[in-house]
Amino acid sequence: MPKITIKTGNEYVESLRKRKMKVHLFGEKVKNPVDHPIIRPSINSVAVTYDVANDPKYEDLATAISHLTGEKVNRFTHIHQNTQDLVKKVKLLRLLGQKTGVCFQRCVGMDSLNALSCVTFEMDRKLGTEYYERFIEYLKYVQGNDLVCCGAMTDPKGDRSLRPSEQADPDLYLRIVEQRDDGIVVRGSKVHQTGAVNSHEVIVMPTRTMRKEDKDYAVSFAIPSDTEGLIYIYGRQSCDLRKLEDVEIDLGNARYSGQEAMIVFDDVFVPWKSVFMAGEYEFAWPLVNTFSAYHRQSYGGCKAGVGDVLIGAAVTIAEYNGVARASHIRDKIVEMNHLNETIYACGISCSAEGCKTPSGTYLVDILLSNICKHNVTRFPYEIVRLAEDIAGALMVTLPSEKDFKNPEIGKYMDKYLKGDKAVPTESRLRMLRLIENISMGLGAVGYQIESMHGAGSPQAQRIMIEREVNIERKKKLAKFLAGIEKE
Amino acid sequence: MPKITIKTGNEYVESLRKRKMKVHLFGEKVKNPVDHPIIRPSINSVAVTYDVANDPKYEDLATAISHLTGEKVNRFTHIHQNTQDLVKKVKLLRLLGQKTGVCFQRCVGMDSLNALSCVTFEMDRKLGTEYYERFIEYLKYVQGNDLVCCGAMTDPKGDRSLRPSEQADPDLYLRIVEQRDDGIVVRGSKVHQTGAVNSHEVIVMPTRTMRKEDKDYAVSFAIPSDTEGLIYIYGRQSCDLRKLEDVEIDLGNARYSGQEAMIVFDDVFVPWKSVFMAGEYEFAWPLVNTFSAYHRQSYGGCKAGVGDVLIGAAVTIAEYNGVARASHIRDKIVEMNHLNETIYACGISCSAEGCKTPSGTYLVDILLSNICKHNVTRFPYEIVRLAEDIAGALMVTLPSEKDFKNPEIGKYMDKYLKGDKAVPTESRLRMLRLIENISMGLGAVGYQIESMHGAGSPQAQRIMIEREVNIERKKKLAKFLAGIEKE
Amino acid sequence: MPKITIKTGNEYVESLRKRKMKVHLFGEKVKNPVDHPIIRPSINSVAVTYDVANDPKYEDLATAISHLTGEKVNRFTHIHQNTQDLVKKVKLLRLLGQKTGVCFQRCVGMDSLNALSCVTFEMDRKLGTEYYERFIEYLKYVQGNDLVCCGAMTDPKGDRSLRPSEQADPDLYLRIVEQRDDGIVVRGSKVHQTGAVNSHEVIVMPTRTMRKEDKDYAVSFAIPSDTEGLIYIYGRQSCDLRKLEDVEIDLGNARYSGQEAMIVFDDVFVPWKSVFMAGEYEFAWPLVNTFSAYHRQSYGGCKAGVGDVLIGAAVTIAEYNGVARASHIRDKIVEMNHLNETIYACGISCSAEGCKTPSGTYLVDILLSNICKHNVTRFPYEIVRLAEDIAGALMVTLPSEKDFKNPEIGKYMDKYLKGDKAVPTESRLRMLRLIENISMGLGAVGYQIESMHGAGSPQAQRIMIEREVNIERKKKLAKFLAGIEKE
Amino acid sequence: MPKITIKTGNEYVESLRKRKMKVHLFGEKVKNPVDHPIIRPSINSVAVTYDVANDPKYEDLATAISHLTGEKVNRFTHIHQNTQDLVKKVKLLRLLGQKTGVCFQRCVGMDSLNALSCVTFEMDRKLGTEYYERFIEYLKYVQGNDLVCCGAMTDPKGDRSLRPSEQADPDLYLRIVEQRDDGIVVRGSKVHQTGAVNSHEVIVMPTRTMRKEDKDYAVSFAIPSDTEGLIYIYGRQSCDLRKLEDVEIDLGNARYSGQEAMIVFDDVFVPWKSVFMAGEYEFAWPLVNTFSAYHRQSYGGCKAGVGDVLIGAAVTIAEYNGVARASHIRDKIVEMNHLNETIYACGISCSAEGCKTPSGTYLVDILLSNICKHNVTRFPYEIVRLAEDIAGALMVTLPSEKDFKNPEIGKYMDKYLKGDKAVPTESRLRMLRLIENISMGLGAVGYQIESMHGAGSPQAQRIMIEREVNIERKKKLAKFLAGIEKE
Repeated sequence: MPKITIKTGNEYVESLRKRKMKVHLFGEKVKNPVDHPIIRPSINSVAVTYDVANDPKYEDLATAISHLTGEKVNRFTHIHQNTQDLVKKVKLLRLLGQKTGVCFQRCVGMDSLNALSCVTFEMDRKLGTEYYERFIEYLKYVQGNDLVCCGAMTDPKGDRSLRPSEQADPDLYLRIVEQRDDGIVVRGSKVHQTGAVNSHEVIVMPTRTMRKEDKDYAVSFAIPSDTEGLIYIYGRQSCDLRKLEDVEIDLGNARYSGQEAMIVFDDVFVPWKSVFMAGEYEFAWPLVNTFSAYHRQSYGGCKAGVGDVLIGAAVTIAEYNGVARASHIRDKIVEMNHLNETIYACGISCSAEGCKTPSGTYLVDILLSNICKHNVTRFPYEIVRLAEDIAGALMVTLPSEKDFKNPEIGKYMDKYLKGDKAVPTESRLRMLRLIENISMGLGAVGYQIESMHGAGSPQAQRIMIEREVNIERKKKLAKFLAGIEKE
Repeated sequence: MPKITIKTGNEYVESLRKRKMKVHLFGEKVKNPVDHPIIRPSINSVAVTYDVANDPKYEDLATAISHLTGEKVNRFTHIHQNTQDLVKKVKLLRLLGQKTGVCFQRCVGMDSLNALSCVTFEMDRKLGTEYYERFIEYLKYVQGNDLVCCGAMTDPKGDRSLRPSEQADPDLYLRIVEQRDDGIVVRGSKVHQTGAVNSHEVIVMPTRTMRKEDKDYAVSFAIPSDTEGLIYIYGRQSCDLRKLEDVEIDLGNARYSGQEAMIVFDDVFVPWKSVFMAGEYEFAWPLVNTFSAYHRQSYGGCKAGVGDVLIGAAVTIAEYNGVARASHIRDKIVEMNHLNETIYACGISCSAEGCKTPSGTYLVDILLSNICKHNVTRFPYEIVRLAEDIAGALMVTLPSEKDFKNPEIGKYMDKYLKGDKAVPTESRLRMLRLIENISMGLGAVGYQIESMHGAGSPQAQRIMIEREVNIERKKKLAKFLAGIEKE
Repeated sequence: MPKITIKTGNEYVESLRKRKMKVHLFGEKVKNPVDHPIIRPSINSVAVTYDVANDPKYEDLATAISHLTGEKVNRFTHIHQNTQDLVKKVKLLRLLGQKTGVCFQRCVGMDSLNALSCVTFEMDRKLGTEYYERFIEYLKYVQGNDLVCCGAMTDPKGDRSLRPSEQADPDLYLRIVEQRDDGIVVRGSKVHQTGAVNSHEVIVMPTRTMRKEDKDYAVSFAIPSDTEGLIYIYGRQSCDLRKLEDVEIDLGNARYSGQEAMIVFDDVFVPWKSVFMAGEYEFAWPLVNTFSAYHRQSYGGCKAGVGDVLIGAAVTIAEYNGVARASHIRDKIVEMNHLNETIYACGISCSAEGCKTPSGTYLVDILLSNICKHNVTRFPYEIVRLAEDIAGALMVTLPSEKDFKNPEIGKYMDKYLKGDKAVPTESRLRMLRLIENISMGLGAVGYQIESMHGAGSPQAQRIMIEREVNIERKKKLAKFLAGIEKE
Repeated sequence: MPKITIKTGNEYVESLRKRKMKVHLFGEKVKNPVDHPIIRPSINSVAVTYDVANDPKYEDLATAISHLTGEKVNRFTHIHQNTQDLVKKVKLLRLLGQKTGVCFQRCVGMDSLNALSCVTFEMDRKLGTEYYERFIEYLKYVQGNDLVCCGAMTDPKGDRSLRPSEQADPDLYLRIVEQRDDGIVVRGSKVHQTGAVNSHEVIVMPTRTMRKEDKDYAVSFAIPSDTEGLIYIYGRQSCDLRKLEDVEIDLGNARYSGQEAMIVFDDVFVPWKSVFMAGEYEFAWPLVNTFSAYHRQSYGGCKAGVGDVLIGAAVTIAEYNGVARASHIRDKIVEMNHLNETIYACGISCSAEGCKTPSGTYLVDILLSNICKHNVTRFPYEIVRLAEDIAGALMVTLPSEKDFKNPEIGKYMDKYLKGDKAVPTESRLRMLRLIENISMGLGAVGYQIESMHGAGSPQAQRIMIEREVNIERKKKLAKFLAGIEKE
């Protein structure tokens, strides 16, 4: 595998230019994704994951010592060696959420690597396969080159009441269509792929429990993101077209954004050395479950970080509006903080309660990481509601930046949209646009819908909570105290 | 006053062309607002208020008999003569919310007319003025020509901790800058003006309690919407630019939208015959309060109607996804309905409990209409959250309509984004885009932020609830039962 | 049937003495229920339903003109003749909740009478039976004598996953064990019977849908409450034993309480003239449904009335504690009122939207009455939580009234438990005990658990909401706006 | 100081007999508190804190190595030496909540000891006093004898709008009335004293911020619980009288209960060696704040433990009722678990994020411990509401145990109150009574009101959240992203 030298955010951006990806957007093939105005802000977000690793202030959080090589690596490529690693991950994600205000897209890859480290080990132990060794080789490559990996789990799923092998179209879950001497050929699609177009590598995993009849769908592997046969179709986001206007204020958060795309696997060849599962259907669920546990933990960090930005914006706009000392405003800010810190507390708790798996990799407490994510499906919505309450209606009735800069009309906006006399009207407009961004614009996808569905929809966590809780023990406790059973 | 013949929605649209309005949008003056792709869908929504009045099926809801002329008028120009009128208003608004899925913009005018009918009567009775008579003449004009009135109440407010006369810039609340023999000259702005650009008339009212020192700000009047000195600056909405693309599916709701604009009053002359308040500061609050009571009732109708659309969309997408029978999906649908009907129940109750004012106009129960609106500041948010839960992440990761229609790429979307095999992929995309529209796109302004701030932000209702509830009586009840006081 | 003259609350109490009921309580047969200290407060509550009918101030709410005789009757025995009757019912119940602070037990009978008037009419119309005529005769007797009727619907139900005829013990739903020429013999039990021991009459109804195989369980009739074979076993309530202490303050609400009992039907004979259903299983559900609709409406009145008492108590204790002006306290009071009025608004709305049934009786809007009750399963809990927040911990750590009155110890309590210096310590204790009564003592059964389960548990309303909502229409609305279907 | 040998729960109970306490209850002096049926169950709960320390299974949680002596001590007397100690505390409390289903009363003392270890150290460092040394001597005594300490913080507070020195009665906050050579004399009262009557020692602390004028109120000390001048007045609890009946089932939890009492300090002398603060008003707040932080952490353990019991009871009664597989029941159980584990997660997080204070004692993360407690003021209420929903109305309409055991009547209860045929009716009654106990009976004080007000009422946490959150940083994050400020 080639050595790619990436150290800084800028080097990361340059590294992306070398890929030959097939990216489609707004009905056209994108020749240069890196400089496309719709795409670039999402690349900027990923770049911050490199920059913090170079900042001595953040070194402890943003880097780690590889257990394979003993060298310092970006934490996003690290395998957790203890509960402190798990805790630091949450803190790193909160920091990055604070710095970007969006989804910075690199957790899915990190969580995929860690999950594969656990499950390939287990597979080898139980089945005598050699997946773990292959995986470790791959991990060295990723760590050594500090690559961004897209963790591709979610299949389109078609009719959700049917299993993979029962679908009218057998490709609605990604599957092996051919096994060859030198590798496998896969067909299908992965949807909602966070940061897909910004990745060097794609790590594919199955998306659900598989039975024997779904054997061909139990497949995991890693390939370069510009492998022949891969097609990326860019997902549109709320207000995405504003990036094509020649504006800055109206974007709310001009530097950063998130990204999702669907990836089509049009009969893609994968050599055996990159295959981590190929038919071992009984390990599909453990891989999904382990990945999900890690990824549900992630939300306790990143969403709390974006929450910090939104809270800061709400306090600032309250000051600009002259109402920051009103008791009901202060109370709403407290409530926003309470909810945001509850999310973070859950993220910390599942990390601190993590434990060592047979592979040596530390795994979060599964019950608590599900609790964490489940709160994330609720609290950001209430935080947004409160932010919108505080912001006032101007957030959505504000005329455009172009009007504001228009020589004839701008003066009226400047005069009449002024709040606190000490604050320039432009600052007020900027803050309102940031709140709009997170609550219903470009950032809302990441802060709300991703909070809802990322790492599994709410019902997925409810199923896990039901499974992980020890109900029999609780029944015994009750029966003992009620005098029905002896201790 | 000229006779304008408007009967149908189409005639309404045509009537708008005759105005000479100064409208700014995206940094440019709009020559023809009626056919501007950003504006037109919002005009279409208003047009439905005419069309239902011509549909025999809806005659009972959509029209009424004028108490002035005995002739049939559009209910939006009617003065409520009994509690049944109040109830029918709520039902009409629910119907229009269902038919358009957005804010159809005509309630503010209706609520302004009814509030002025009460308060000008009171003013004359207490102060010996002649406002009521002027108002009745104006009302005949509006009813006879079936005009759309923009109810302009909200001032920019500047620093909200300061009163109108205390602001650094005295124009931050609209005010009389000159009293002349033939009328008054006013300066200022009104913001968040729903349907402003789609109106024939602008009815200005003060936005808060006024004291003696705020006398010049206690002003109410009506003028044609193209009066010299009026400037409209169009408010941008989430995803507004999609209307400029050559697309339909991606709009979610291609026919209809809402509209808000800020209106600048650049020293506008108003003849006395159109002035309904000019300095009577002690009546500023009664006018605000009466208008707010009517307008908080309105939300019990229109938002329940949009809620119906969103519930319908959620059920449909669940069917398309193959999960409509899952118990947790059904339970969420029940919850959405429960919340939506609670809103409606509150709207009905404040109407049924309405009572006659001295002017003869029926007014809603003020406490219950505040209860109604206060629930509207909460429940639509939860309904949206549940809809987003049911819809799944595809709602925000869906590639563009242009990709879907692209000969090369569209086939992949068609193949992989199919849900239930009996449903065309396009139908699924359309339904997802409708949900996106209401939850974070063009319609979200109306369904969420307007629910929050329209007719007063949540704290405004809390203040009214505190005032309207008879706490002394409740204390007596408690003291009696506790044995502290005799009955 | 004998003529019983009851006009006043006192006469009502005296009328109860004439019955020969078999009542069991705390392991003993109660010889004189009327004067038993556990029972009497619940009788006092019912007595208020008579007293308000004699108070000219409340005449309009508490009485009505019988549509049978044209005479004035207590509204609790009246058949609703229009929507105003339905609205007045809700207002009467709120008044009585305010006056007693508990469940006054007489609504179940009223709702049973109204439900039977609708359903017996329907049965006769469809089956050619004569139940309606029988029922009307019975109604005249009840109205003429102003009787209290216990509406007995809820069967013990045994294993809830099994139908009546599938239970291990066939008596777990009340059933006809013998049909005779002169009447029927029934066996079984009815549980959670509100006010059973305080009633003159028992009106039995089935509790659920019945199928053909459950025919014997489809039975409705009315009998005097001291009929041979009836056994009453008194339900205990939280803190019931305090009534046996010689105390007043510690009761919180010394005058009034609610009552529930289980009734055993130990092979009871019912003459045909009192039978309103005997095997017509297809009408079991309509009867349950109609009764439930009325009874779910009731909660929009009575619980709002008790809510008023609790709000009054919370404000008063805040004043006694010296914190009534704190913004967070005021905000919590507003929230309590908001929730309480939402309940009431729902009660009013289902009444105002009521409609005439074929029998002439007016029925509430079924969907909205379910919405009403469903909110009642939630909001009183939050109102209690807020009251407990405001009250402070003393509410549950307060030493006993006997300590307070003890010459040696009382002085310490008097000194140290004083709040605002102008308020006697005893008043503070009394108010805390009233809040304890409603939130976890004698009144909590009525205000909380009855709010949860009375007139059907939450899931019962959810099932009805799912059924009553027109989902197909909502789907059409969405499909039209999404461009999938034409209007 | 005398050596008291306590090892087992039984020895603890015996140790209490030696005290000469003045305890009042129901208007009488209690001669033998240990065997009083009202008091004994609360003693049994404390005894479990000894028994678990002797159980090898729990040794790691229930004991620790004293940093003073190197000997094994009961964790309730231990000073936290690292974050693992903090985490183990939470786990121990959860275990004890599970085993007793009530408040076991010993945390307040533990939290007082730890808070004093931090603050006396700080005082000495800043003021040159010798409090820390005194405290360490005292701690050795407590550890060596394994004593139960009552942490007495809450003053009666009188009019809460006034400071201690402003009250009409100067004794409404406990104060020094005399400084002597050998010690101080104090007067006042402490209310809501958890486990007061079951303690060997009373540790007094101030309850709020003090200013210079409140100097005499800034006092902390420890004295034996039977010191001359101390008077205990026992707080009554919901359903307390049932303990005086000769019943078991009706108690719900016959073995265990909580306890609160008010303590009167009738001019009590305290020797200097036991005084830890006497006038250093600027350290009143640090002591309150440190204690509160520890105590708010505690609730993340104990209440989750009681929650486990209630969840177990809810699942069990659902099984007994035959509805355990109904999807809505399962969903409610999941929700109960979700809320309960969120509480626990917050308890764990503030422990894992704890840090070393200058004294060497580890302190929890103050923000997160406030987040923890604030969730506890909400979630147990919702857990109770769901448990009551699942339990059904029988929980509050159930006749008495004496009726159930009555030869004549019991057979009817046995027959008609049977649920699942495989479960004895008595088991069903027992489980319902356990749920009643926790939700509105003896245990409700501990699970609900204590969750609300213990360790500070909700508003106290909101104030702390406002203080502890770094709002300025959040504002900077927002201003940077909005383009208003550079990083």
